[in-house]
Formats: sequence, structure tokens, C-alpha cells
Amino acid sequence: MLIDYLATTDALSEAFSDRAVLQAMLDFEAALAAAEARLGIIPQQAADAIRTAADAKHFDAAAIARDGRAQSTISIPLVKALTARVKENDPDSARFVHLGATSQDVADTAMVQLLKRAEPILASDHDRLESALRTLSDRHANTVMLGRTLLQPAPPITFGLKAAGWVAALASGWRRLHQSFAETKVLQFGGASGTLAALGDRGLDVAQALAAELKLDVPPGPWHTNRDRLAALVAACGIYTGTLGKIAGDIALLMQDEVGEAAEPGSGSSTMPHKRNAAGCVVTIAAATRVPGLVASFLTGMAQEHERGAGGWQAEWPTLAATVQSTGAALASLASAIGGLSVDSERMRQNIERTNGAIFAERVIALAAPKAGKDAAQALVAAALSRSRESGKSFRDGLMSSPDASRWLSDEDLNTIDSPEQYLGSAESLRQRLLSWRPER
Amino acid sequence: MLIDYLATTDALSEAFSDRAVLQAMLDFEAALAAAEARLGIIPQQAADAIRTAADAKHFDAAAIARDGRAQSTISIPLVKALTARVKENDPDSARFVHLGATSQDVADTAMVQLLKRAEPILASDHDRLESALRTLSDRHANTVMLGRTLLQPAPPITFGLKAAGWVAALASGWRRLHQSFAETKVLQFGGASGTLAALGDRGLDVAQALAAELKLDVPPGPWHTNRDRLAALVAACGIYTGTLGKIAGDIALLMQDEVGEAAEPGSGSSTMPHKRNAAGCVVTIAAATRVPGLVASFLTGMAQEHERGAGGWQAEWPTLAATVQSTGAALASLASAIGGLSVDSERMRQNIERTNGAIFAERVIALAAPKAGKDAAQALVAAALSRSRESGKSFRDGLMSSPDASRWLSDEDLNTIDSPEQYLGSAESLRQRLLSWRPER
Amino acid sequence: MLIDYLATTDALSEAFSDRAVLQAMLDFEAALAAAEARLGIIPQQAADAIRTAADAKHFDAAAIARDGRAQSTISIPLVKALTARVKENDPDSARFVHLGATSQDVADTAMVQLLKRAEPILASDHDRLESALRTLSDRHANTVMLGRTLLQPAPPITFGLKAAGWVAALASGWRRLHQSFAETKVLQFGGASGTLAALGDRGLDVAQALAAELKLDVPPGPWHTNRDRLAALVAACGIYTGTLGKIAGDIALLMQDEVGEAAEPGSGSSTMPHKRNAAGCVVTIAAATRVPGLVASFLTGMAQEHERGAGGWQAEWPTLAATVQSTGAALASLASAIGGLSVDSERMRQNIERTNGAIFAERVIALAAPKAGKDAAQALVAAALSRSRESGKSFRDGLMSSPDASRWLSDEDLNTIDSPEQYLGSAESLRQRLLSWRPER
Amino acid sequence: MLIDYLATTDALSEAFSDRAVLQAMLDFEAALAAAEARLGIIPQQAADAIRTAADAKHFDAAAIARDGRAQSTISIPLVKALTARVKENDPDSARFVHLGATSQDVADTAMVQLLKRAEPILASDHDRLESALRTLSDRHANTVMLGRTLLQPAPPITFGLKAAGWVAALASGWRRLHQSFAETKVLQFGGASGTLAALGDRGLDVAQALAAELKLDVPPGPWHTNRDRLAALVAACGIYTGTLGKIAGDIALLMQDEVGEAAEPGSGSSTMPHKRNAAGCVVTIAAATRVPGLVASFLTGMAQEHERGAGGWQAEWPTLAATVQSTGAALASLASAIGGLSVDSERMRQNIERTNGAIFAERVIALAAPKAGKDAAQALVAAALSRSRESGKSFRDGLMSSPDASRWLSDEDLNTIDSPEQYLGSAESLRQRLLSWRPER
Repeated sequence: MLIDYLATTDALSEAFSDRAVLQAMLDFEAALAAAEARLGIIPQQAADAIRTAADAKHFDAAAIARDGRAQSTISIPLVKALTARVKENDPDSARFVHLGATSQDVADTAMVQLLKRAEPILASDHDRLESALRTLSDRHANTVMLGRTLLQPAPPITFGLKAAGWVAALASGWRRLHQSFAETKVLQFGGASGTLAALGDRGLDVAQALAAELKLDVPPGPWHTNRDRLAALVAACGIYTGTLGKIAGDIALLMQDEVGEAAEPGSGSSTMPHKRNAAGCVVTIAAATRVPGLVASFLTGMAQEHERGAGGWQAEWPTLAATVQSTGAALASLASAIGGLSVDSERMRQNIERTNGAIFAERVIALAAPKAGKDAAQALVAAALSRSRESGKSFRDGLMSSPDASRWLSDEDLNTIDSPEQYLGSAESLRQRLLSWRPER
Repeated sequence: MLIDYLATTDALSEAFSDRAVLQAMLDFEAALAAAEARLGIIPQQAADAIRTAADAKHFDAAAIARDGRAQSTISIPLVKALTARVKENDPDSARFVHLGATSQDVADTAMVQLLKRAEPILASDHDRLESALRTLSDRHANTVMLGRTLLQPAPPITFGLKAAGWVAALASGWRRLHQSFAETKVLQFGGASGTLAALGDRGLDVAQALAAELKLDVPPGPWHTNRDRLAALVAACGIYTGTLGKIAGDIALLMQDEVGEAAEPGSGSSTMPHKRNAAGCVVTIAAATRVPGLVASFLTGMAQEHERGAGGWQAEWPTLAATVQSTGAALASLASAIGGLSVDSERMRQNIERTNGAIFAERVIALAAPKAGKDAAQALVAAALSRSRESGKSFRDGLMSSPDASRWLSDEDLNTIDSPEQYLGSAESLRQRLLSWRPER
Repeated sequence: MLIDYLATTDALSEAFSDRAVLQAMLDFEAALAAAEARLGIIPQQAADAIRTAADAKHFDAAAIARDGRAQSTISIPLVKALTARVKENDPDSARFVHLGATSQDVADTAMVQLLKRAEPILASDHDRLESALRTLSDRHANTVMLGRTLLQPAPPITFGLKAAGWVAALASGWRRLHQSFAETKVLQFGGASGTLAALGDRGLDVAQALAAELKLDVPPGPWHTNRDRLAALVAACGIYTGTLGKIAGDIALLMQDEVGEAAEPGSGSSTMPHKRNAAGCVVTIAAATRVPGLVASFLTGMAQEHERGAGGWQAEWPTLAATVQSTGAALASLASAIGGLSVDSERMRQNIERTNGAIFAERVIALAAPKAGKDAAQALVAAALSRSRESGKSFRDGLMSSPDASRWLSDEDLNTIDSPEQYLGSAESLRQRLLSWRPER
Repeated sequence: MLIDYLATTDALSEAFSDRAVLQAMLDFEAALAAAEARLGIIPQQAADAIRTAADAKHFDAAAIARDGRAQSTISIPLVKALTARVKENDPDSARFVHLGATSQDVADTAMVQLLKRAEPILASDHDRLESALRTLSDRHANTVMLGRTLLQPAPPITFGLKAAGWVAALASGWRRLHQSFAETKVLQFGGASGTLAALGDRGLDVAQALAAELKLDVPPGPWHTNRDRLAALVAACGIYTGTLGKIAGDIALLMQDEVGEAAEPGSGSSTMPHKRNAAGCVVTIAAATRVPGLVASFLTGMAQEHERGAGGWQAEWPTLAATVQSTGAALASLASAIGGLSVDSERMRQNIERTNGAIFAERVIALAAPKAGKDAAQALVAAALSRSRESGKSFRDGLMSSPDASRWLSDEDLNTIDSPEQYLGSAESLRQRLLSWRPER
């Protein structure tokens, strides 16, 4: 829908489409019948009839939504419609539709299936993004640029290190997200009160068989009002999107005309060549803006009453779908932006030089203080900076004209005092650590 | 969509549909051309050609969404498509499409129009709800029931008072919401940087004429990055929905089988007559669960950069649409639940009687303490309650068998000590105050 | 506390201190006794004794907090301690402490009083901020600077216009906040179930007299579970802080070394003169980051059960106090930053010039398209930009070397095509409108 | 503080106290000096002097907070004060204070230490809670009670199963929380730009030694603007608190006088014996109300700019501290409530009987439908229920008077149709699965 166009992708909007929802619910009913037939609880003929009827294309989503609103669940009208359809073809089999299940069993398991299908869509974009960032990091291992703290210039870093930091953050974010997706791959099946009583003593057998049909795990028990797996998924989306938003924000800042150190692909148009089109980052930042509130909505709904909740559960679907789709939109968009990112190494160096050496004041203090004491080191720096400002010359020139400078600094240090390459500390070691790090769990 | 079916109504999903979005955007373009023609800036023929072309049915929402994603706004592909359409019929007029406007002008003004159309849908349900509650309050002015604090029995109230409290809370919530809707009825029109520079010195004239065409107010200036009107609307939805959720929660609690004091219409079915179907309240509680997080999302997005934002703005549409639709779903659902609510006055009295008089302990203390002192009054009550528990007789009986009781309480007080009607204090005065109260601003 | 140091001010942390809380609660009890004495319900001597005892310095906040936790309210241990203290001095009067009130009456009215005292602290900083911004806007009415959209250069604006936009947004934000504070200035007084039953038929009389003592309004009824006034205050803080955060964000961006158009006072230190210390903006941005979630927390808590809630109410105090203090910290900090802001008009102009005229491409199209048509106008611009890029000369030079340019643009337009002063449209009119605008309600 | 008294515990408020914050920061400085001395970078004498000076009791928290506000970090004034104190005793050593570190290194590592100390406080209460629930579940393995769905009666469960469901949800919640705490136990150490440049090529050596001193892990790189470990902790608190809130909500509902199936310890007082004091649950519900918004606040702040953020970081401390303390308050409170919970098995059975057998309608359909078909089974049930309502007799009696009943139901089934013990399905198997389940990771 146009109102949500920036908050999803084609693949993800399809994954949560009406047809996908209906088919996932119908798949549950077909699998339930198959499992019960396998266990001899219902006739195989009934299972076959139900499977045949359970095709989304025969069902009217709008009518089901309308009736679902009146009963606060679409499972009831859907089961009714399915029963009617089975009855048309095979009247005897209709009695076996939905046997032993409750409406929330259908709806929750269907959502689990939708999530299972959404994950690979995200995984593919995550791989694309991570791979592009690794390439950038390696290519720019030696590209010096300003560090920036509180949006002000700081001692230099390399762009390779910056990109490696993004890689590591994404890796741990994705690990959480992947694990959370994995945790959600469980069947929901408890019947009216979560005891599977309508199936007598065959409840757990049916659960096992049903899970096998659906390629899902059997959880320790029904989770009608224990929503923590889904909550963990939503939260993991929030954390991961937070990292995506951080990266997109950095790039948008680097793309400012006054900074000019990076550009998304497709930047500029014939009539507005001064514009670097930050459309990719913008979509990602939008998602990072939106998702934290969605996480709060989901967590709020966890307080579900007794065996099945009155409100919290019914609030989940829009939040879940919006969260996963927003995460995917953020990811797809950033992956494309990073995949075609141009980096202006020259401009990065110029922006260092623009500071006229002042960002190396810290270096002088680090070198001089152990010998001169902090006060004297700071006085040396202050004098040098003052001379630099007055003369328009560089901080290094200002420093060299001080007699104290050569007392406390070696000639080599003095000569290279404003060379960014000489003040990178452990940048390259850290870069390699970050790139080779694998989150343990 | 099925994924959102509990979070909207038919009328509201139509109000934010693709067609509604497209037409509202096209209406802006048509009105802009009309205004500029009226002022002699463009030919009337061009305005006519643009008006003719600006019909949503000719535009492909899916294609526009796709292109819009690449540019982080659908205004650009829409204007392009409109221009192409005008050109087909009247090549000379195409140059006058969108003259002086920027993409956010179109999008924001379109959203303002959608909100303008959403309000009456909500207003009608609000009126229905308020009216039903007033009727209930009057009908049950003398219906006594338990007060309940921290979910425990407390001295009696009337259901009329309870309903009147709901009316007053809704009235002030609606007043805020209505005012917030009113505040949003302003044109967005600033051009690329918010100076209307492309229109030379005619910018404000065009703004006035355009606003008149669209029946909107002219704000003091463009609000591309001042989102407080929309934020206030979203927040007002949050507050109002909070009140709706409180009412729905109370009713759901009263509908518990063990309480049994109220029932939504349509309660019970032939096979599950013990079930009171709380579907209406549940939809309302679901919305109240969800909306606070949406409010947070919107407020987070207010920090939009400089003249037009890079992320915060792009996050707004889904949040706005979800908030208004959820509010409307909560309202429609509760209005129907309250409109057909059955109230069991008999059961309300029985639930008072079930407490065996213990909830009147406070009354004895209130009557006795001024004479006997707090300690003695509490001792009197404790002894009476203890006798009541042991004997199984009522608190009144327990009290009467104490010699102190008649020292500190009049015979009349003693005889009616557990009569709920005698311990309603200012309930009826308060009820009338609450119903006649009108929020000032 | 250190953990919260950036999220409050000295004045506001005092306003919500233990002493302030205790005294506000004790003031309620003293005023209640005074009101009841005035109406002849209790002896004047008792009212005097209670007033004397009701001094926070005699009470042990830590002990009260501990006992309060066990009973989920501090009102109970506080009333107990007050009663004991009255009893020490005047045993007969102890029975009249807290007569007719419930624990939530004390706690809510105390919070209302704390809010009443917090508002002037915020108001004073708001005035300081608004006044500083008006001065800046007037001083820089003619200071041209880049407009910036999606963090990219756009046609010029004036800094005066930018500041005026901030003024208008703050004015409407403050209006909402001020009104919300005003709405909260109401007594809470309902007794156990909200009927004032313990006071017989004198409940409303006592309410009136008590409100008069406390200089508060009498609401239409008790609001034990109608929290919308407080919710509206919290939301208004969220909206206002959103605007503060937008302004602070803009300034932090302008302060980037590469942009260099503004600086907070106290920028730079002897050793890090390249650093512009954005400490003020940073505190404001931090608050804007935090408050939206607090708003969600408060709205979530509105669903309070029946006559007094079991959880939602008990969640309110920390959220309320954090919200108001964060808002105040954001405000104080930004007011100081803006109060001493230096603006570098020269650098603003240089940043326009750095774009080499490309931001005026839109102007050429606006001027040429009505005559040449859009396609031809865009072709003209594209050619000019291309020549400019290749030659390193300005966009204007690139334009002038096109024969078409003089066909569609006047000589005057051509000569001043990249003069920012010639392309400000309605900037000054809008600036004046924004500054003179007063939000109606 | 009184304003937060329900949102913390004594132990946790001590863990985040001013003294704890200061000492944790000073410990970092002492450990840094010790590590650098060990590596021969600074003299051992300096490390000793710094260690001696680094005692929180010598530092003025209020003054540091005030200065910290002006610089948007307390690290700067604290390091200054520490340097001054070292200088008093050993002027030569002052130059070695804070060598190579940046202010965020100190602050982040201090927070990590506070979190490390907070975890055992929570762990101990978690163990207490889980153990109490396991005991309850075993004791009530055979205690039948109503299932309740959407707050309406449903087929029976056992209280043992219900409690086992709580245990499993808590176990997975705690696993996440524990892992998240573990992940945060990492050093922050990067120097001004995250390259450790001020330490030349010794940066990683110092990091290793410093981490060893502080008993923390060394992360792959500095995480100044990669906040995902902390975000994961905050989110895990949110999920875990969501589960705590669900349990507390269930108990508060069971404690309703009309339900009367459970009671917290300390219920009732001499004067209000009808009141079951739900103070413990209420504190837990309050935390669950509040924490989701705090999670949103934290996630929002993840978008931190470049090498150190301008606002997001500065927003973290109050949110982190409030989240962990609220979680701990919820946990401590619920552990006490559950530890002393009384369960009324008799009342549980009575509440089943109150439904007059109607909740077994589902059972009849489950038994009859496979033979009779759904329509006939539903007709049988409807007739029985109707007779039951008219006669006032039980559903079973209503059923038995139907000739069809004995066609489709066995005598044994008929005779025990409303026996809760006969309709528990897999309740006990599920209970044991839930209790023996261990979350894998």
C-alpha cells in the first residue's frame, strides 16, 4: 500500500499478504487433518478432502476480515468457510475439520510460518550488506579520515576501521535476529485451554505429527499467553535496525556536501547535480525511527490474561508484520546504498588537513606529558595553537617555533606530528579483529 | 489487509487506501494549477488540462510505490506520471504541472486531506458511544454496585456514577482529539527550501489561493520540519485510546463469569452459552495496547534536519495511518459494545452482599472515630469482623453484638450499616456534575 | 543523582526531591483538616495540631519508602507517621487525621502540587529561549545561508527565517504544554471508592474548601482512574521536547567543523581549539531521544481498573518526574546554548558559494520553463552544469555560454542568477509571519 | 528517592547510587594506571598514588554532576578532581592519570561494572521465584481449576499446569537476560577516536591488561557507538518483565474477591479483612507497564554518530538504570508474592461447578462429532444446554434426558461428562515437559 511504501519491500509485502496469511492458516488445517489421519484418529479420506479444499484461492479475504472483526479472530470464519467447502465436496469429512484445535492455534502457527518465510529474504540482504562492507573495509584499510566525536573533528581513523566496526555490529545484531527467528519456529497447538483435552490422551502424539507435517519444532507446551519468543524476535529486529540506522546515519552525514566523503549510487541528477541522493539511507533511518515504538507496543501486549488473552494477543499481528517489514526495508535499502557506495579518499584527507593540525594536539600532549607533566604539555600545545591561529600557519609550525617542543618531542615526532598515518594507533589491528570476530552464540 | 483486520474499520481503511492517497495528491496538483491560473501565473487552459488529467483511476499505484522507494518519496514519480498524462492531451500545458511546489508539499497536504476525511468517521462513533453511555448512566443512576480498588471490593458506588466518569473522560479526550484534527487542517506549501522562491514574490498569494481551493487554512509558514501539529494529533489519539482502553478493560472485567455484571451484545452462542463474547472490548484493548508505541515512534521522528528531514519525515505515514485507524477501530468497536450492553443490576447487588458487609467497615470507622478515637473504632470493627467470620453471620450482626457499637453509632446507623444506598456519599451529585461538565477549551 | 545528571536541573531535582514530595503530601493533610475545621466537621484545635505536625523535616523518607513498597503506596505509612506525631502532642486530635480521604487522594494531589511548582521553572527557560531566538532572527533577517534538504544543499534561505520557524514551533509547543499544566491544577479527592461517602453529604463542601486551601480547581469528579490530564501533560512534554530536539539537532549540524556556521558559547578549550563544544545541544538531543519512550510508558498505564488501578497508577510517578525533568533539562540547556550562540554569516555565504551556483539550477528552470517548456529548460540547465563541471567555472558562466539562456532569461536574471539575495522568494514575509504568529488557543 | 520508590529495591538503588558510580569510575582509572605500570608505560609509583587517591569518599558527587552537565559528561570533572587529588600527595604522578583513555571509556566501563554487580541481585530473586513456582506446580499437579480464555470460562486445567507454564516462560526469559548480562561484561577502551592512538602501538596490550585488572572481557574493538550489547540487555529486561507482568496479572485476577482462588501473603488487615492486598503483584504490573517505553527510549538512542555520539549516548544512563531497577523491583516483589501465595483449591473447584457444566459442551462435541457429524453434535449440545437453563439442573442432566446422547456417547463418558478430572487431556504430561524443559542456549 502507498501509505506504507517506504516500510516494506516487494518480497516482504508478499510474505505478509492476504493470500499468504490465508494459505498459512489453511496449511495448518490440512496438516492437522493429515497428522490425525496418520494416527488413525480421522479417516484418510477426510484428510484428503480437507487438503484439497484448503487452497487460499477459494477464500474471500475481505469477507473473512469482516466476520473476523466481529469475533476478534479470523480463525473462526476461516474454519467455517473451510468446513463449508469440504462439505460441498465430501459431506462426511466436514466433521473432521479443525479437530482438537482452537482458533489461536491456527493463527499463531500461521504467523510462525510467515516469519519462517520472511527470514531468508532478510538473510540474503544481510549477506549482501555484510559482504559489501567487508570489501569496503579491506579496500580502505589505509584510507585515513577524521575521527568525529560529538560531531566534531577528532584524531584520525581509517575508513577501513569504521567499516569494520559496522561489520561487527551487524554480525552480532544478525546473530541475535537469526537465533530469534529460529526460536519462533515452533508449533502452536493446545486446544481451547491448552490441555489438548479434546484429543483425549492423543494430544501430544498429534502435536508431534502435526509439527512434523509443518516442519516445526514442538515446544514444551502451548504458548498461547507466553509470547516471549515473538517478543524476542521483535526486540532483535529493534536492535538490528538500530545498528542499520546508525550506519545509515553516518553515511548520510558523510554525504553532506560540506563533508563530501561518500556518496550513494545514483547520486545526482542532470538538473540537480549538487544533490547526492541519500534515498537509501533515508529509508533505513526512517525504519530505525519507527521500530523502537513498535517494540514497545509488542512488549506491552505480553501481559496476556490466563490461558488466552483479551487484547494483548489481538494487538500482535500488525506490530509483528510492521516490524519485520520495516527491518527488511531498512536492510534492503542500506544494502543497495552500501553496495554502490563511492568513497572519496582524497576529500577525506582534505578534511583532515582543513583542521590545520589541531586534531593532533592530543598527540603532542600524549608524547610530552610523561616527560613534561600535564600542565607544561598543555601550555606547549596552547601556545602552538595560538601561534597557528595568529599566523595562519599550521599547528606543526606553531609547535616548532617553541623552544620547549624539541625538549619533549623527538625530531621524528615533531616532523610527523600532523601526519595522520603516524597517529593511527591500533587502527589496523582493531580492524582485523573486528572483521575476524564471530559472535559466539 | 488480513494482517491488520482488527486495527481498522472498513471506512477508515478506505480513507487511507491507495486510491485515496493518489487522489489527494492529484487534488493538490489540480488545485495548485487552478490557483496559479486564477492569479494569472499560468494559463487557465493548463489548469483545466491538469485538472482533467488528475484522476486517480489513471495512475498505477504499484508502479508509483516502486519508483517512490528508489527516491524516498512517491511525489516524484506521481508528478512525473501526471506530467506525462497532461502532455498526452495538451503538450503545452505539461510545463505548468507542480509549478513552485516541492514533493513534500504534495505529500503533506495530501495527508492533511486524508486526516480531514477521517475525522467525521471517528466523530460519528464518538457521538454514538457518548450517547449510549449517557443513557446507561441515567438508567442506572440508582443501581448500586461494588466499588473496586486494586481489583478488590471497596465501598459501593452506582453504575450510573461509573458510566458518568467514563463520559467525562471521553469528553475531554475527544475535545483534545477534535482540536488536534482542527489544527492539522493547514496547507503545506513552501517549495524546495520553504521560501517559495520559485514563485518570485507571488508565493504567499499562491498559498492563499491554493488553500482556498483546498479549503484549508494557511499556516504562518511552511512546516516541512515542524511536525508538532501532526504529533499533537497522534498524541491525542493516544490519550483518547487510553481512555477507550480503560473503559473496555472495566467492561471485560465486569463480564467475567464470576462477576457477571455486564455483557456485550451477541454474548453466548448455542454451544457455548457460558461464554460472554467480549469481542468488542478486546478489539479496543488491542488498540490501547498498540497505540502508545506508535505515539513514541511519531515523537521520535520529530527531530527532522534543517529544511527537510532525512528519515524522520519518511517514517511518518505508516505511523499516522496506523494510529488513526487503530483509534477508529477501538472506538467503533467499543461504541457497538456499549450500545448493546446488558447490565445485570441484580448481580451487582449480589456481589455486594457476597462480601457479607465487610466493605462497610470503613463506614463504621468514619462514624465512630470522631467520638471514640481511631484506635477504639478500629477495635470495634475488628471485633465485629472477627465475630462475623466465626459465626458466618453478617458484619452488621457482628457489630450489633458489641456493647460499644450502640455507644458510638446511632440506632439508625446501626440498622442500615450495610445498606449500600446509605453509603453512597456524593455519588449522585458527582454523577450529575460529570455528565453536565463540558471541557472548556 | 549522578546516574540522572544530564536529565534534570538543580531546580527541577529539588522540585521532585523527597522533601518536596513529603511536604506536598503533608500539605494535603493539613489543608484537609483546615477545610474540615472551617466547615465544623472537626475541631479547629485538631486542624491546628495537624498543621503543626505536618512538617516534612520530622519524617523519615527512607523508612516511608520502605514501608510504602510493602503496601504499594507511601500514603499509608506517611499518614500513620503523621497520626503518631499528632498523637504525641495532642492525643485527641489524632483521630481527625486524613478524615474522609484515601491514599490516592494524598498522592495525586501532592503530584499536582509538584507539577504546579515545576511549571514556572520551565516557563522562565522557555521565555529566555524564545527571546534569544527572536533576537537572532531579527539580527539575521538578511543573513543568507544554504537551505538544506535531506542533508543536501538546496536554494538559499535566511538564518532569520530559520530561527523564526523555530520560534513558531516553540510557541505552539509551549502553548500546549502550558495548557496541559493548567489542566492538571485540580484537586484529587474522592475517598475510598470515589463517592466521598465517609463524609456523608458534606463531601463536595469539603472538596471545595480543600481546593480553596490548596489553590486548586475542583474537577467534575475524582479522577482516580481517569488519567488523561496527566497523560496530556506528558504528551505535551514529548511534543515540546521533540521541537527542542529538532532545533538542537540543527545547531549541532551547523556546528560541524566542515559546516562551521554556528557555535555554542564556551566552544573550544586551550588544548582542543578545533572542538566546538556542543554540550548544550547534546543534552537537549539526549532528552528528545528519551522522552518519546516515557510518553509511551505513561499512555500504557492509562488502562487503570475500575475505581483505583492495580499497576498503571503505581507506574506513574517515575515516568512523570522523569518526563518533566528531562523536558526542563533540554530546555535549560538549549536556552543557554542559543543565548550565547555565535553565528558565522561569512561562512554561511561561503558555503553557498562552495556549491558553485548549482543550487540555483531550480531557479533557472522556474524562470525558463513557462516559456521554454520543462524539457528545454532542463536541457539548458544540464548543459550549463556540465560546462561548469568541466571548466571549473561557475554555473552562471556555464549558463551564459549557452545561446538559449538569453532567449528565455532576462539579462537581469542572468546576471544575478546565483545571487542568493535574488532568490529568497517570500523568506522575509514568512519570517515576519512566523514571528508575529500567536497560537490561538 | 520517594518518587521512584516502587521502581527499585534497596539493593538495586545502592547498586546505582552516586557512590557506586563514582567508585566504578575511579576503579577504572586505578586499574588503567596499574595496567600501564605493569607494562612499564608509567611508573609503579604513579599507579600506587592513583590507586590511593581513587576512593569515592573523597569526591563531591554534587559538584561533579554540576560540572558534568556543562560538559555533557561527568568523566571530565571526575578526572580533573582525581588529578588534583593525586597531585596533592604526589605531584609527579598526576601526569599519568587517565593516560590514553577518553571520557566515554571511563563512563561506559563504569556502567558495565554496575551492571555486573546488579545481576546477582536479580539472579537471587529469580531463583527464589522459580523455586517457589516449581513447588506450587508440584503441590497442585492435581488441583483442577477453570481455564479462562478472553476472561471467560473454558475447559478445566490444573493449577500445576498453569504454574508450570509460568516456570517455562521465566526460564527462557532469564536465559536471555543472563546471556545479555554476560555479553555486557566487556571493557570499553578506545581513546579519543577509538584507535588507542595515544598509546602508540601498546594500545591493545594496555586493553588486555586493563581488562584483566577489571575482570572483564576484551571486545573485538571499542564500542563507543555500537550499543547493541546494552540494547540487548535492556530488551531482555523488557521481555523478562513482560513475563513477570503476565504472571502478576494472572494472580491479581485470581485474587479478585469474586474469583478468590489465590491470595498474596499479608492479605487482609484487621479493619479491611475483605481486602486481599495485592501489593506485590501491583508493583510487578507497574514495572511491566513502564519498561516497554524504556526499551523504546534505549533503542532510539542507538543511532549514535560516527566515533562518539551527540545525544544518543548521553541519554543512556537514566534509561539503563531505570530498566534494570524496575526489572529487579518487579522480580523481588513477585518472588515474595509467590513465595507466600495461598491457593484455594476448594474455591477453584467451586468456580468450575458454578458454570453448571457448560464448559464441558466442547467435550460433548469432541466425543460426538466424529460419529454424529458436527451439526448433529452441536444440536445435541444446544438442546442440553437449553434444558439445563430452563430447569436449573446441570448440563449433564440436560444431556442425559436426550435420547441421542446415549447413541453417541458411552455411558462412562456420559456419567463423567462434567468431571474436570476426566477432561484434562495432556495437562499432566505438559506440566512435566514444561518443568523439565531447559532453554538450550
